[in-house]
Amino acid sequence: MGSSIARAAREAIPGIRLRGHDADPQVRARAAELRLVDHLAEDAAEAARGADLVILCVPVGAMADAGRAIAPGLANDAVVSDVGSSKASVAAALHEVLPGATIIPAHPVAGTENSGPDAGFAALFRGRWCILTPTPGTAAEPVERLADFWRALGAKAEIMNAERHDLVLAVTSHLPHLIAYTIVGTASHLEEVTQGEVIKYSAGGFRDFTRIAASNPAMWRDIFLNNKAAVLEVLSHFLEDLAYLEDAIRRDDGDALFDLFTRTRAIRRAIIDLGQDVAAPDFGRSGR
Amino acid sequence: MGSSIARAAREAIPGIRLRGHDADPQVRARAAELRLVDHLAEDAAEAARGADLVILCVPVGAMADAGRAIAPGLANDAVVSDVGSSKASVAAALHEVLPGATIIPAHPVAGTENSGPDAGFAALFRGRWCILTPTPGTAAEPVERLADFWRALGAKAEIMNAERHDLVLAVTSHLPHLIAYTIVGTASHLEEVTQGEVIKYSAGGFRDFTRIAASNPAMWRDIFLNNKAAVLEVLSHFLEDLAYLEDAIRRDDGDALFDLFTRTRAIRRAIIDLGQDVAAPDFGRSGR
Repeated sequence: MGSSIARAAREAIPGIRLRGHDADPQVRARAAELRLVDHLAEDAAEAARGADLVILCVPVGAMADAGRAIAPGLANDAVVSDVGSSKASVAAALHEVLPGATIIPAHPVAGTENSGPDAGFAALFRGRWCILTPTPGTAAEPVERLADFWRALGAKAEIMNAERHDLVLAVTSHLPHLIAYTIVGTASHLEEVTQGEVIKYSAGGFRDFTRIAASNPAMWRDIFLNNKAAVLEVLSHFLEDLAYLEDAIRRDDGDALFDLFTRTRAIRRAIIDLGQDVAAPDFGRSGR
Repeated sequence: MGSSIARAAREAIPGIRLRGHDADPQVRARAAELRLVDHLAEDAAEAARGADLVILCVPVGAMADAGRAIAPGLANDAVVSDVGSSKASVAAALHEVLPGATIIPAHPVAGTENSGPDAGFAALFRGRWCILTPTPGTAAEPVERLADFWRALGAKAEIMNAERHDLVLAVTSHLPHLIAYTIVGTASHLEEVTQGEVIKYSAGGFRDFTRIAASNPAMWRDIFLNNKAAVLEVLSHFLEDLAYLEDAIRRDDGDALFDLFTRTRAIRRAIIDLGQDVAAPDFGRSGR
């Protein structure tokens, strides 16, 4: 995320001055080689010193530590934001460790299954949404400035309260990841089926799930722990719906299956019409 | 499937004579416009008349009817095959309605979420597996001829018994489709979240599931009803694994989550290394 933001900002905003930091010396070394930022700082406070905008790109469970680390360098008028996938927990963590700071949590709904400085690219945010979740007390002007920043990177900005964000994303992102991790785990554990065969015949559908189940483990561990209530709530709905389908299969109720399978087609069509996925069959993979 | 086979066979096998039939007059008209075959027959028996190889491309629940329909035209030495995703049920249905015929059920593990004559393309089978499930009594020669046919279309052929096929595919294809249909249904039903928001923020992971949940409803209804035992068995494993993860989230057991999420990454890598998916992040969709 940090790498994509740096590349996109460099392309989109002439004259921007970029400073960066990563806790891992190897990541810093690679980021320096790639010239992702103008100054690669040895510690977080130095990276944040005098900045108008600080964006924390760390797993949501590491936000409090990251907030503490930038505190000594933070200018009075700086905006502190992030890119985490759960927002109520991030707001709480940052307000606690940075009292009085202008904190505007944000979530660009974009990304790939890869991470690290080499995985970033400038086009990542184009046409995607970036959700800003300012708390009610936040002034309008810095929120608008942050929205403008994301628009400059090609994203569409949306304001939402943190609780609603966390429920919507539990449906559209967190539950899908939980299910994908589970099914990939199940497939690899089934004793009757060797892993070789699961991989060999993965083009029957399974491979679609393995992409998101290859996402960053620390990032996703933190999301589930920090958006626990919403994730468990949508999971309970999913389990009810799955029990209904299981029962339909058991009872040979073909009509119940056919009805659902017909309705789900319309959702795909709507996502493509809204420009949120490619129209090409098989995501364009199969070489048509 | 029929359209892709016709296009691939035309490209790969010079001089091949293709005859086809579809029960739907509109599909026949479109197939004629596209010149998919040399002769578009008005009934199935006429399409099958004198053919060396008859491939039934119908939902697995319609195999018995399709077998009965071709029977009057079937040559004594014809090989009857299919492309269905469950194999034990297809073998039973065809042996019952075509006693004495040479029946070799087959399953090319390839396809897109689209169907109909326009959705086919010649490259569909390239590098994919085609699994043949001859019953023990079948002569080796016709099996080898059918394998050669699929190899000519670019596929890799594999012989397997029908029961093993049905279990392996329950893991790699049927369970993933069941889960995808369920989660897309859950998302569209959740009262707290409008469908507009689910679609808008679908790039967070959800959109990956909508692709396979846009597959042919009749085809998938039939698969679940015809591979019931294996589907219910792997579903029970999945539900156990999901309960374990749900419990880990509830207990804030980050280590359990991190461990699984780390292991699932390796499966993705193996699928890419075996050429069963593209290596490009985000399936190459995100315009890097």
